[in-house]
Amino acid sequence: MTNKPERVVVALGGNAILQADQRGTAADQRANVAVTAGQIADLIANGWEVVVTHGNGPQVGNILIQNEEAAGVVPAMPLDVCGAQSQGQLGYFLQQALANLLRERNVERPVVTLVSQVVVSRDDPAFDSPTKPIGPFCTRERAERLMRERGYVMREAGHRGWRRVVPSPEPETIVERDTIKQLIRVGTVVIAVGGGGIPVFRRGDGRLEGVEAVIDKDLAGQRLALDVGATHFLILTDVDRVFLDYGGPRQRGLDSVTVATARRHLAQGQFAPGSMGPKMEAAVRFVENGGKLCAITSLDRAAAALRGEAGTSVVPC
Amino acid sequence: MTNKPERVVVALGGNAILQADQRGTAADQRANVAVTAGQIADLIANGWEVVVTHGNGPQVGNILIQNEEAAGVVPAMPLDVCGAQSQGQLGYFLQQALANLLRERNVERPVVTLVSQVVVSRDDPAFDSPTKPIGPFCTRERAERLMRERGYVMREAGHRGWRRVVPSPEPETIVERDTIKQLIRVGTVVIAVGGGGIPVFRRGDGRLEGVEAVIDKDLAGQRLALDVGATHFLILTDVDRVFLDYGGPRQRGLDSVTVATARRHLAQGQFAPGSMGPKMEAAVRFVENGGKLCAITSLDRAAAALRGEAGTSVVPC
Repeated sequence: MTNKPERVVVALGGNAILQADQRGTAADQRANVAVTAGQIADLIANGWEVVVTHGNGPQVGNILIQNEEAAGVVPAMPLDVCGAQSQGQLGYFLQQALANLLRERNVERPVVTLVSQVVVSRDDPAFDSPTKPIGPFCTRERAERLMRERGYVMREAGHRGWRRVVPSPEPETIVERDTIKQLIRVGTVVIAVGGGGIPVFRRGDGRLEGVEAVIDKDLAGQRLALDVGATHFLILTDVDRVFLDYGGPRQRGLDSVTVATARRHLAQGQFAPGSMGPKMEAAVRFVENGGKLCAITSLDRAAAALRGEAGTSVVPC
Repeated sequence: MTNKPERVVVALGGNAILQADQRGTAADQRANVAVTAGQIADLIANGWEVVVTHGNGPQVGNILIQNEEAAGVVPAMPLDVCGAQSQGQLGYFLQQALANLLRERNVERPVVTLVSQVVVSRDDPAFDSPTKPIGPFCTRERAERLMRERGYVMREAGHRGWRRVVPSPEPETIVERDTIKQLIRVGTVVIAVGGGGIPVFRRGDGRLEGVEAVIDKDLAGQRLALDVGATHFLILTDVDRVFLDYGGPRQRGLDSVTVATARRHLAQGQFAPGSMGPKMEAAVRFVENGGKLCAITSLDRAAAALRGEAGTSVVPC
């Protein structure tokens, strides 16, 4: 054990801020954020250098509904702009709560949020087959109109109706990476790459340009973790660990697993796409690229999971 | 002239991003931001250290309308949260455009946006008499319901109907001040305190707590300018200079004016409250507290105004 503090990127699931059974008032979100921020403040008080990233599904979903409902009065903003709005909103909730809880613990650390763009590639195959559902459900008639008038890709999504789907490309480069690193170096707690980051193309002439897509927040968190030289990566979600043969008669929880074994499980299709799949992929990539440990667990087990005592951890060997 | 670069805080009016006669699509806003960011990029290319702040009136107005229109489906967010969303949105527009235009000019400088909170005092007299109109106009019936159900203060606002008014307290402390300074020191172009900052109370135990109010963006910009040790403060608005006896037969433009004279004009009530008044007040406070020059002018005269060759400039003596 060296004296250098260990650095962890904590990726918060959408449910850490807004739960599925809640309406989503500001009071609901503040109450959840207080619990979440308490766990993070404990990590910081215990000497961890923490960088926070978070999902934005429920919040950007609400912003998209507001944009739709008011579309006759106020021009609807594209998805990249709505994502930027959600970074402002969630960053504000988190930085305020975290600063308050650090103060309670007599820890003096500034907490800030950076509006974050993440470069994706035009050649990413995700752009040929949009898969990520976003925004409100609607009728077939409305879906057909949105496809015609706005060029949306819409899919039937079970009994609740139709929904827009957008590409979910790979995160390539975090535009604000160097600033994030500089701030960590001077002891600042940074909240960044919210909602997987605002997806942007880097054009041939180097210019950035927003694009309507959603980057998986755990894959973006893994990119962030490697960029800032984190030793640990913590994915907080609504289950306490990952399961093999999930939902079947042979279902069993995964505790500690080597990266080689985890990669094999992934190849066997053990983990659901759009759910545990990208989380395990993010965990594996982090450790394959030099990370010491990635843990996937629930919020209340954060500290124990970083000690390898709870959740599912992926380790080098 | 020393070798140390001069530092300027540029405060952009709402019209720098969305003009009154525009619908406010993302394309409109991006087009305006490109022009605005071009002027700022020129200043940076000419050696100025620039910190950017901006109004958010039109954008937060649209967000408030969206919140109202969708209130039956999605819980409306309080004003502090809407302000945070607007900081994300406008920061994103500005940081992307500015980075692109700096790249065109072969200037390598990171550009980032910080979500910014500004402490206001519970004892501020503004809380006893809300004056700042925000959000959509409505009928008397609806206004009465909003007063009853949500405790809003509503005022009749001419022929367009009723409108909510909120307090406009003084900016006391920028919570993220130290981080802003650290980033400037390493050559980063920082966008901060958007919309005058998210107003927060500092409670007796030190905890921060959001409050529904609007801080004047020029007064907050002046606070920012002093906090970061700016030598210059540039307030960009929709007129090229300030007038005395505005609208009367003796109307005349103000060029360069000493801070003592400007203070006298203010005391005489020369400048309209909620319009040129707070701009001149901000200019005077900046120079009274050690600033070299504050210029009030239109976007296209930014560079000339910093040389004292355009706009209205307030100087020490």
